[in-house]
Amino acid sequence: MAKDNFVENIADIEADFPQWYTDVCKKTQLVDYGPVKGTMVIRPYGYAIWENIQHELDARFKATGHENAYFPLLIPMSFMYKEAEHVEGFAPEVAVVTHAGGEELAEPLVVRPTSETIIGNMYSKWIQSYRDLPVLMNQWANVMRWEKTTRPFLRTSEFLWQEGHTAHASEQEAVEETMKMLGVYKEFAENVLAIPVICGKKTEKEKFAGAIATYGMEAMMKDGKSLQSGTSHYLGQNFAKAFDIKFLDRDGVQKYAYTSSWGVSTRLIGALIMAHGDARGLVLPPKVAPTQVVIVPIAAKKGGVIEACEEIKAQLEKAGVRVKFDNSDNSPGWKFNEWEMRGVPVRIEVGPRDLEVGKVILFRRDTLEKTDCALDGVTQTVRALLEKIQGDMLESARERRDGRIVSVDNVDGILSGVEGGNFVKAGWCGCRECEDKIKEKTAATARVMLEKLEHKVCAVCGKPAKHSVYFARAY
Amino acid sequence: MAKDNFVENIADIEADFPQWYTDVCKKTQLVDYGPVKGTMVIRPYGYAIWENIQHELDARFKATGHENAYFPLLIPMSFMYKEAEHVEGFAPEVAVVTHAGGEELAEPLVVRPTSETIIGNMYSKWIQSYRDLPVLMNQWANVMRWEKTTRPFLRTSEFLWQEGHTAHASEQEAVEETMKMLGVYKEFAENVLAIPVICGKKTEKEKFAGAIATYGMEAMMKDGKSLQSGTSHYLGQNFAKAFDIKFLDRDGVQKYAYTSSWGVSTRLIGALIMAHGDARGLVLPPKVAPTQVVIVPIAAKKGGVIEACEEIKAQLEKAGVRVKFDNSDNSPGWKFNEWEMRGVPVRIEVGPRDLEVGKVILFRRDTLEKTDCALDGVTQTVRALLEKIQGDMLESARERRDGRIVSVDNVDGILSGVEGGNFVKAGWCGCRECEDKIKEKTAATARVMLEKLEHKVCAVCGKPAKHSVYFARAY
Repeated sequence: MAKDNFVENIADIEADFPQWYTDVCKKTQLVDYGPVKGTMVIRPYGYAIWENIQHELDARFKATGHENAYFPLLIPMSFMYKEAEHVEGFAPEVAVVTHAGGEELAEPLVVRPTSETIIGNMYSKWIQSYRDLPVLMNQWANVMRWEKTTRPFLRTSEFLWQEGHTAHASEQEAVEETMKMLGVYKEFAENVLAIPVICGKKTEKEKFAGAIATYGMEAMMKDGKSLQSGTSHYLGQNFAKAFDIKFLDRDGVQKYAYTSSWGVSTRLIGALIMAHGDARGLVLPPKVAPTQVVIVPIAAKKGGVIEACEEIKAQLEKAGVRVKFDNSDNSPGWKFNEWEMRGVPVRIEVGPRDLEVGKVILFRRDTLEKTDCALDGVTQTVRALLEKIQGDMLESARERRDGRIVSVDNVDGILSGVEGGNFVKAGWCGCRECEDKIKEKTAATARVMLEKLEHKVCAVCGKPAKHSVYFARAY
Repeated sequence: MAKDNFVENIADIEADFPQWYTDVCKKTQLVDYGPVKGTMVIRPYGYAIWENIQHELDARFKATGHENAYFPLLIPMSFMYKEAEHVEGFAPEVAVVTHAGGEELAEPLVVRPTSETIIGNMYSKWIQSYRDLPVLMNQWANVMRWEKTTRPFLRTSEFLWQEGHTAHASEQEAVEETMKMLGVYKEFAENVLAIPVICGKKTEKEKFAGAIATYGMEAMMKDGKSLQSGTSHYLGQNFAKAFDIKFLDRDGVQKYAYTSSWGVSTRLIGALIMAHGDARGLVLPPKVAPTQVVIVPIAAKKGGVIEACEEIKAQLEKAGVRVKFDNSDNSPGWKFNEWEMRGVPVRIEVGPRDLEVGKVILFRRDTLEKTDCALDGVTQTVRALLEKIQGDMLESARERRDGRIVSVDNVDGILSGVEGGNFVKAGWCGCRECEDKIKEKTAATARVMLEKLEHKVCAVCGKPAKHSVYFARAY
C-alpha cells in the first residue's frame, strides 16, 4: 500500500465518475464484492454508516407510532401470484429455494424481494375489527432482487433496508400515512444525510408493482444523475383484496383495509458517496460519519503532543463526539490523505509549536479550510463546527442542485439538459408512448411529477401537457 | 376475548409445560406462526425484547473491540464442502436456492446456516500480514436451518442471531477471545436476562461442526430442562486452512490464522419465557421488558386520577423508564390480568382514596407483592424497585437452579435425576459409547463438562472418570 497520496488510488472524479465511485467504495473499505456475482459485503466502515442511518430513522419511525417486527424471509411462490401487477414486477427477479432439509419442496419458496405479500397474509389473521386498526409496523431486513447489472450499494442482488407496512380503516388515513412517511424521509435526507431531495408522485410506468400510487424522493448525484433514494406507496385495497385483510367497521359492515408501504435501503450509502464526494474521496456529513473527528499529532515525539491529543480526545468523547486519535507510525501527510479519503468531517492537527501558543489547527473536510482554534474550549468549537458543516453541506448540495435544474419545451431540450448533467423539467401529455420515446431518445426517465403544472405542451407530441415532470438519467 | 381472568387462556404450567409455553408465546403476542411450516413471525412485543437484547449485547461487543459488518446471505454450495466436519453437520439442514432471475443457477447457493465459510473466504482476501490481525467482527443477521420439529424461538427454520467471527495471529489469542466472549455472554445472561448459566466445554459429540472446541452456556428452564443459550467456538486453524486465511508473521513466515466464532439468537427470548414465567404468564426482567411499568387507574372517572397517572407517567419517562399508561375502557381487573400475563415488572395502581392520602400502590410481577408508595418520590421508589426486581429475579432463579443440581454415580441416578427435573452431575470415561448409552436410557445429553473432576468413575462403564459432566434433558 502506497504511503503517500492515497488519492492516486482513486480515479479522477471529473474524468471517470463511475470508476471514481467504485474506487471510493473499495479504497475506503466501505464495501467489498462477495463471492457470488452481484453480492456485496458491507465492511465495518460502511456498516457503521448504516448503523447511524438506522439509529436516526428508527427513532423517527417510533416517534410516528410505528413498531418493529420481523417476518419470514421465505415466501410461498403462490403468494406472489395473488396480486397481478406485483407478480409481473417481481417474479422475473426473484431467487427461489426449491430444496431444503435434503428434500425437494412441495412448493418453491421465494427469497423476499419485498414483503407486502407475506405481511398481508399475517395482517389478514390479526385484523378483525376497526379496533385493531391502524396497524403500523416496520421491519429492518435483507431482501433479494436478482439484477443483471450490479454496483455496490446502488444495485446488488441482496441489500439491507427497512420496509414499513401499515393498514388503515380509510383511504384518507392510508394516503395520509403514505405522505407522512415520505415527509419523514425527506426531513431525514436533508437534516441527517445533508442531501436535498425532490419528492413527488411517480408515473404509472415507474410506480411500485401493485401500488395505486408511488411517491419517490430523488437526489442529484455529482454527475447530475438522479438516485431514487426512497419510496412511499399508497396500495389502496389491492393487497387487502389479494390477501383478504378485512375488518368489521363501526357501522357493522365488513370492509377491506387500505394499506401503505415505504422503504429506504443501503442505497442511501451510495447516495452519500455520490452527492458529497470529491476528488479526494468521501465527504461525510457529521451526523452519519462513523468518525466525526480525527486527531493527528504533528511531531509526536515532542513533549506534550501525545498528552494534549489524549486530553482533547477524552474531552470530545465525554461530549458525545465520535473521535479517533490516530497515533499510528504513519506520517502526518499519510494520515491527512487517509482520513480525508475516508471523509472524516473534522481533523484536529496538534503540533508542538501551536501548543506552545495554546492552539491547534482545525481542518474542515467539506471546504478543505484550515483555521486556528484556541486549545481552551476546543470541544465547544469543534461541536459548533460539526453542526456548521452539517448545515453547510446541505446548503452547498442544494445550491449545486438548484443550479442544475432546467426547464425545456422539447425532446432536444431534454437531451441536451441531461447531457449537461441537469434535472430537466418538461411537459408531458401523460401517455406511455411519449414517456417511452423520451427514454429512447435521451436515456432519461420520468423521476417524479411536479405538483404544479408549469408547461403548456408535452415535450414529445405537442399536445396539451397534463403534468410537468422531472426527467433525468438515473442510477 | 374473555374480559376476565386471562390466565384461563393459558395451560396449567405445572400440568403441561410445553402447552403453557406455546400459549404464552401466542397469547402475549410475542410471536405467531408464519405461513411456511417451521417459520415464525416475531411480533412487536417479541421484537421489542429482541431490540433490548441487541442493544445490551451490541454495546458489550463494541466495548470489547468488535465492529459490525454484513456478509451475504447466499453461500456457494462448494464452500460448505471445504471443511469436512462442517459440511457433515450442516448440509442435511440447509435450504438451497437453485433458480434466480428466471434461470437455473450454475452452482446452487445455500441460505446461510452460519457464516464461517463465507466470512473465511473474505478474511482470506483481507488478511495479508500480522499487522492486519486481529480481525474482530460481528454481524446481526437471519440464518436458516431446516429442522423437522420446530417451536417458536427455540427451533425454527429461520431465526435471528448475532455471529462473531475473529481471526488471530496465535492460538493463545484465539483461545482467549473464545473464553472472553463466553464470559461476555455469561455476564449478559445473568445481569440483563437475570438467568444464571452454567458454562463449560462441550463434548466432542455436542461441539460445533468444524470447531476444535465448543464452549456453551446452559440455562435451567422451569421444567428442569436445559436450554443451550449461547456458544463460543475455538476453531483453531480448521477454517483458516479450508479458506486459506494466511498472514506473513513478524518472523517473515507465512502462517495460517487462528479463528473463533460465537453466537446467541432469538432463542434467548424462549429462555426468558421458560426461566422466569409462571402460572399467570410472562415475568420479564426490567432490563429487557418492553414496558417496565404500567400505570392502571382505579375509578378513573373520579377527579384527579387521570391527571395523577399522567403526571407519574411523565416523571417516569423523564427518568428514562419505559412506562405505559393504560387508559383504555377495560376494567382494572382485566388490565391487571393482561399486563401480568405480558410480564410487565411493575404495576402502579392509582385510585382516588389512595391519592387523597398521598399514595399509590405498587405491584411487583415477580413476587406478586403489593406495597404502598408515597406519591412524593414515586419515580425514585419505582426505579429502585426495578433495580431490586432485576437482582431478585437472578437470585431467585439461581436458588431454584442450585436446588435442582444433583450428583450421582450411575445411569439409574441420571435417569431419576432428570426425571425429577434436575441437572445431574455424573462421571464419564470420555468415550462416545457411554455418552450414547446415557442418552438412550435417560433422554439426557451431556450439556457441558465441569472444569474440575468430581467423580471417580464413569456412570456407565465404571471405568475411571475422565470428566465430570452436567447431564440434562434439553431443548
